[in-house]
Amino acid sequence: MKAEIIAAGSELLTPYRLDTNSLFLTGRLNLLGIRVTRKVIVGDSREDLVDAFRDALERANVVISIGGLGPTEDDLTREALAELLGLRLVRHEEILQGIRDRFRRFGRTMPESNVRQAMVPEGAEVLANPLGTAPGLWLETRGYIAVLLPGPPGELEAMFNREVEPRLAHRGPSQRLHTRELRVVGMSESDLDSRIAPIYSQYEGLETSILAARGEIQIHPRIWSSDSTSAERLLDNLVKKIEIALGDCVFSTTREPLEFVVGAALRAHDATIATAESCTGGLLAERLTRVPGSSVYFPGGIVCYSNDWKTEWTGVPAETIETHGAVSSEVAIALAEGIRRRSSTTLGVGITGIAGPDGGTPEKPVGTVHIALASEGGCKEKQFRFPGEREQVRWSATQMALDWVRMYFLDDTRRAT
Amino acid sequence: MKAEIIAAGSELLTPYRLDTNSLFLTGRLNLLGIRVTRKVIVGDSREDLVDAFRDALERANVVISIGGLGPTEDDLTREALAELLGLRLVRHEEILQGIRDRFRRFGRTMPESNVRQAMVPEGAEVLANPLGTAPGLWLETRGYIAVLLPGPPGELEAMFNREVEPRLAHRGPSQRLHTRELRVVGMSESDLDSRIAPIYSQYEGLETSILAARGEIQIHPRIWSSDSTSAERLLDNLVKKIEIALGDCVFSTTREPLEFVVGAALRAHDATIATAESCTGGLLAERLTRVPGSSVYFPGGIVCYSNDWKTEWTGVPAETIETHGAVSSEVAIALAEGIRRRSSTTLGVGITGIAGPDGGTPEKPVGTVHIALASEGGCKEKQFRFPGEREQVRWSATQMALDWVRMYFLDDTRRAT
Repeated sequence: MKAEIIAAGSELLTPYRLDTNSLFLTGRLNLLGIRVTRKVIVGDSREDLVDAFRDALERANVVISIGGLGPTEDDLTREALAELLGLRLVRHEEILQGIRDRFRRFGRTMPESNVRQAMVPEGAEVLANPLGTAPGLWLETRGYIAVLLPGPPGELEAMFNREVEPRLAHRGPSQRLHTRELRVVGMSESDLDSRIAPIYSQYEGLETSILAARGEIQIHPRIWSSDSTSAERLLDNLVKKIEIALGDCVFSTTREPLEFVVGAALRAHDATIATAESCTGGLLAERLTRVPGSSVYFPGGIVCYSNDWKTEWTGVPAETIETHGAVSSEVAIALAEGIRRRSSTTLGVGITGIAGPDGGTPEKPVGTVHIALASEGGCKEKQFRFPGEREQVRWSATQMALDWVRMYFLDDTRRAT
Repeated sequence: MKAEIIAAGSELLTPYRLDTNSLFLTGRLNLLGIRVTRKVIVGDSREDLVDAFRDALERANVVISIGGLGPTEDDLTREALAELLGLRLVRHEEILQGIRDRFRRFGRTMPESNVRQAMVPEGAEVLANPLGTAPGLWLETRGYIAVLLPGPPGELEAMFNREVEPRLAHRGPSQRLHTRELRVVGMSESDLDSRIAPIYSQYEGLETSILAARGEIQIHPRIWSSDSTSAERLLDNLVKKIEIALGDCVFSTTREPLEFVVGAALRAHDATIATAESCTGGLLAERLTRVPGSSVYFPGGIVCYSNDWKTEWTGVPAETIETHGAVSSEVAIALAEGIRRRSSTTLGVGITGIAGPDGGTPEKPVGTVHIALASEGGCKEKQFRFPGEREQVRWSATQMALDWVRMYFLDDTRRAT
């Protein structure tokens, strides 16, 4: 069963905004056994909408439109579908009353323009919108299903869950999409692919996307199957083989970001961590605290951007900075050991570098970052040269630091067993 | 002059990845006087690609495709266009040599599959790709222009700049797109629109998009005109009127994020700032240091996630925490004043709150955040209830704190004049 998605809105044809609703819809449709085979983005033009619906209804079993259900003259989705199918628009008194009541609840009178939102093509079912004034529509006719959803993501998601999913369930074939996701650090995309292509290409019917995200690579194997048990078994088997091929570079098979994996490791070992960051400016602390409940293992961190702060707050000797420069192995080690000592945590991380765009020199170009990880057993330190712009250098540095923490516990577990 | 964009790639029809290249292309095309009227996303299927090219070439003057130029069997864009237009694919020896040389430079032998990349439809011009193996193509025939660009953003952007832009320049009509962007904080979308709709709706030919981003609203007025001087004058005039209508809520008319505006204000006043963050976990420091050169005004910050850290590192009395709780006006004030005193900065910011999902109580629900700003003149403090999930609460808190710093300098400037 095939679906196409039409996203309507002139703002989606500007350089400023993308349709992101289709990601949600695609994920949910796939789980219902429905593939998304095309997405079209058109402006607020009746002609373009009519065109888009015509083409999509010719090709797909289900066509879902997003947006264009508001009260203004730019909101033309209802009208376009009715025009294409030769249906009259009929005023739906119950919807109108609902919209009027909604305005009354907020102490306002409904503007006359909102009457548009109560116009329904003959034969269409109304999909309630508890979160806004724009109702959705479900039109099933001549073998097509057309679904009109509002653009605000909260409204769209609530309406899909309550009204659309139950109507689409059991419509699709018995085939469902089965998926996995592996996340990998510390390996290039081509190196990764050369190691795993011989594995995934052996499975018939399996599609595998390899996506480079910042600082990591995601592997998305997926298979459509009507036999859930064997599809899941096949994927489990594949994941195991990939994990063997890539070793410790695989940090997650459960869609968890690296900071969540690190958080779980810290928790599992009853360990704590404190950070002393210079060039990353707090990004490492910020990532560690994205995890709910991270206060259990993260008491705090210092962003010591100036040299004075490095000395006063984390005890980096001023002479060390003077002799070796703020961006040096010695300072990274002093930061990591200093913060660990002062905060009595299991681990201390120190990061110092040149994020750019300025501040680089021939010896220490932009992208030079020193990372240090202090523990009871000593201090590991290394100099990196991260490519890219300021934001990318900062992200890569935190990704590497988090990965070191992960590896620390992997090694620790190995030593213990 | 109209353009359509076709993004090819099965991964763009999964729930994991969006086409973002079209934002870059749209921005650059608009500057050349070319409007993007439709975007289509199709999978790696020859039939779908042929369909998409056929429909797009019927409607638009320029059709630009993204992706599908690689060496694998999934890369079908060249073949689809040649099939549609009935053109033979001819092997281009110079391209082939270039690809071979590229492999040689990296010490490898070219796999036979890469020969695909040297196949060129008769009559097409080759667009050099200095950053990868996939050359682009420019095909101008029967009044159409079809441009095939590779998918990796770096390659696409470099190729557009070097090869496509010069070919498209002066093709478009004399009309160009003229734009502005205003960024606003501290106002709801509907309140904002009710204040400015009477202004922007008076200008003929002007389109205005109002986009809610997290913690701010962006206003994008734009107008197509062949008379640059009067278009720019009209936009200047409009921006002035909007600024008067929205007052201090407008923080940028030059596309600058709030932390850059705050950085410029700190610089202009020779002021410095230090931060003491609890629930935002370093996000405020991280945002302040996104600005290159921020070390001039930001010596550092503390992420004091645990109560011990609040006491030890920023001098919040343990009794204050015990009496009022860590999430309280008193603690926020003690954080702001403590960090300002200890670091001798012009300003000190303290943030403490409950970002969720856990930790809320009936009196202090998730989203409760206290923000304090300490300066020579005293300490401003307020309790907020930010809506949304953990990430949104944290972002909103830093947005508010940054806005307070901005307002501090606005007031300061007013006092001085």
